[in-house]
Amino acid sequence: MSAIVESRTGPAQAMDEAIAGHRLDETVKGVPPGARLRLDEVGAQGWRVHDMPMPLCILREDVLRRNSRWMSDFAARNGLSLCPHGKTTMAPQLWDIQIADGAWGITVATMHQLNVARRFGVRRVIWANQPTGRVAVDAAFAALRDPAFELFVLADSLEVVDALAQGAARAGLSRPLNVLCEVGTIGGRTGARDAATAMRVARAIAAAPGLSLAGVEAFEGLLPDTAQVDAFLGTLVATARDCAAEGLFGGDEILLTAGGSAFFDRIGPRLAAAGDLGRPVRRVLRSGCYLTHDSLAYEQNYRRMRAEGALDFPPGDLELAMEVWTLVQSIPEPGRAILTCGKRDIGWDTGWPVPLRRVRDGEATAFGAFHKVTGMNDQHGYLIGPTEFLRVGDTVVLGVAHPCATFDRWQVIPLVDESFRVTGAIRTFF
Amino acid sequence: MSAIVESRTGPAQAMDEAIAGHRLDETVKGVPPGARLRLDEVGAQGWRVHDMPMPLCILREDVLRRNSRWMSDFAARNGLSLCPHGKTTMAPQLWDIQIADGAWGITVATMHQLNVARRFGVRRVIWANQPTGRVAVDAAFAALRDPAFELFVLADSLEVVDALAQGAARAGLSRPLNVLCEVGTIGGRTGARDAATAMRVARAIAAAPGLSLAGVEAFEGLLPDTAQVDAFLGTLVATARDCAAEGLFGGDEILLTAGGSAFFDRIGPRLAAAGDLGRPVRRVLRSGCYLTHDSLAYEQNYRRMRAEGALDFPPGDLELAMEVWTLVQSIPEPGRAILTCGKRDIGWDTGWPVPLRRVRDGEATAFGAFHKVTGMNDQHGYLIGPTEFLRVGDTVVLGVAHPCATFDRWQVIPLVDESFRVTGAIRTFF
Repeated sequence: MSAIVESRTGPAQAMDEAIAGHRLDETVKGVPPGARLRLDEVGAQGWRVHDMPMPLCILREDVLRRNSRWMSDFAARNGLSLCPHGKTTMAPQLWDIQIADGAWGITVATMHQLNVARRFGVRRVIWANQPTGRVAVDAAFAALRDPAFELFVLADSLEVVDALAQGAARAGLSRPLNVLCEVGTIGGRTGARDAATAMRVARAIAAAPGLSLAGVEAFEGLLPDTAQVDAFLGTLVATARDCAAEGLFGGDEILLTAGGSAFFDRIGPRLAAAGDLGRPVRRVLRSGCYLTHDSLAYEQNYRRMRAEGALDFPPGDLELAMEVWTLVQSIPEPGRAILTCGKRDIGWDTGWPVPLRRVRDGEATAFGAFHKVTGMNDQHGYLIGPTEFLRVGDTVVLGVAHPCATFDRWQVIPLVDESFRVTGAIRTFF
Repeated sequence: MSAIVESRTGPAQAMDEAIAGHRLDETVKGVPPGARLRLDEVGAQGWRVHDMPMPLCILREDVLRRNSRWMSDFAARNGLSLCPHGKTTMAPQLWDIQIADGAWGITVATMHQLNVARRFGVRRVIWANQPTGRVAVDAAFAALRDPAFELFVLADSLEVVDALAQGAARAGLSRPLNVLCEVGTIGGRTGARDAATAMRVARAIAAAPGLSLAGVEAFEGLLPDTAQVDAFLGTLVATARDCAAEGLFGGDEILLTAGGSAFFDRIGPRLAAAGDLGRPVRRVLRSGCYLTHDSLAYEQNYRRMRAEGALDFPPGDLELAMEVWTLVQSIPEPGRAILTCGKRDIGWDTGWPVPLRRVRDGEATAFGAFHKVTGMNDQHGYLIGPTEFLRVGDTVVLGVAHPCATFDRWQVIPLVDESFRVTGAIRTFF
């Protein structure tokens, strides 16, 4: 049985039957033909990745657990509360690990994700988006009916504040909904584009019955470099100072929150620059992809952070915990191998997957710099490089470029130990 | 209850409990908060799309059924057997419609898809790929143990033929596995690159105990234009003639098969050019995306076909049957609206989705040429254009650019009638 299933710690949700008892058979991608079992029976089957149907996405449990502890440690060393983005994995079993390692809460992006988090016992959620439409707004207030549940949502316009205030009136609850004022950048995604707009939104939140201005939020993860990230976080801090000066914040503490996985080193120092806001400030980091790490952009950003070295980093490093194993289906011409793995199996929107190892007769050999995946279709991958190194039937292990976009291609993902024995499985909810 | 669920016609698989009884609650994306029901109860809920959680992918059942009949009619008028690609939808309920409308079989791309097809009662499958690895090869022969099941697989190398022959020896069945020799193009995907290779593969199939050369296969869908498609189909036909001349084909008839959804008009005439091969020839078209059609590449290709007008087309036209409904979450600056719909909700690999209609207070207004989706993140879309036309909270209906890549973002998809009332739902198996 999966150590991860056993570790579920959510109050009254431990070993939730919807996960542990999830029925698996060969209609679930990755499950061997003929198998019929519960998810919590996967670890007892004696499966080895080498013998499983491919393509197959796997999670290296030891690496994943080290990554989880590393980031918790990083947050603690740098005065941050970690609220990892749950949308990356949409796997309550992995959220449990993050919470057990000290995560302050779980971040979500949508109403569906909020409801999955509630269903599986998460007690504190940042819904890092504007609840939009009556169904979503009412879902936020439905969550608040549970007195033990804590929720934060975003607003970046008076229209959103108005819709939330109408939701509060419909719900008629005694406690207010915590709303964070979102600041954004010109040409970016959501978020108030200038100080005047941000302050109008913040004042409207503070003035609305049933809402409470709980802090200021930004998402810096799409910006191109650290200089822009630093400047943008300066906007967040300036907005927080202006809100504090006007006495707009409700609640006992002020939340300042940002942070994807690309620039998580910038968040602590820049938010600390807010200084004294008249009440306790909680600086919340929302990174998600650190849990599996990747073979491309996040690894490059991580190398940049370590090279700059300005922060208090824990021992060790983030490492890749997610692999997709696939087979060489065809070598139809010199220099070109076709893999049994495509866009439906692995994320590719931030770059093609990276060939890590060839496995033949149980022996792994690392790829050098001469092999590259240069394209994929729905069910095929194109591996370009010296084909003398490859045979039809060889296993090719791929490193992922974008964990979020790989998790969502699998409803069930095996966990493996250091020897690639399957020790359990996680269920995702996409 | 869904008319589609009711229409299941597979022998002994009708109203399969794994589909009809599939449990839905708010942990399934698209299901309203608080709902707890079986899939076959969806149609009785009185749901209207306008009131559902968004983003939401829907299928317009009337359009989809017309498309299914249109393509069956097209195939019949042009001497083709239709074996639609099941990987597009991975929805046995939709395969049932295609089969009821006369489809000769269902095409799949992977072992997992083969096993889903078998599980839900499909009786004839073209596995349009090389079974690779022992697990996959053995799955092909396991399927053959059912005497009522008919299977065709591909080979494009001696290594594949050898692996299939070893599988045949392990299985020890009395009937052979039908293998199609795949021809390909230089710089393309799988498939023998020249006549000599193709003939070596064909001879090896014909000579291998337990295998039977059942025909010749190609996939032309990735080629850039009709001239290249026609030339490539000429290669398929030449290979078939050479195989016939050498007496390599087994079985009662010869299968010649090609066809995605972009060039389905070329298949019939070019394959007919094979002429007399000494035994009956079945020309099999494998298009998949026609069932929903799209708003971009397939629509453009369809317009080309109709403009050229050389074939016998049925009355009416293929039309878009799949939409994704989403909301305007933010209008953070002039000309830019942020939608609650991203890469996790809609296909984008062949182009961004196309804004079709704004819906406000139940009234639909078509978008003109001035609004475009120019990008998406995992959970957000960027709609660029005159924002005077839009308000936060408006519904924006998007047309899909790639049906395959949208189906696989949803585990359950509602069916709607002409008034966008939900009449049922399909379950997908990705």
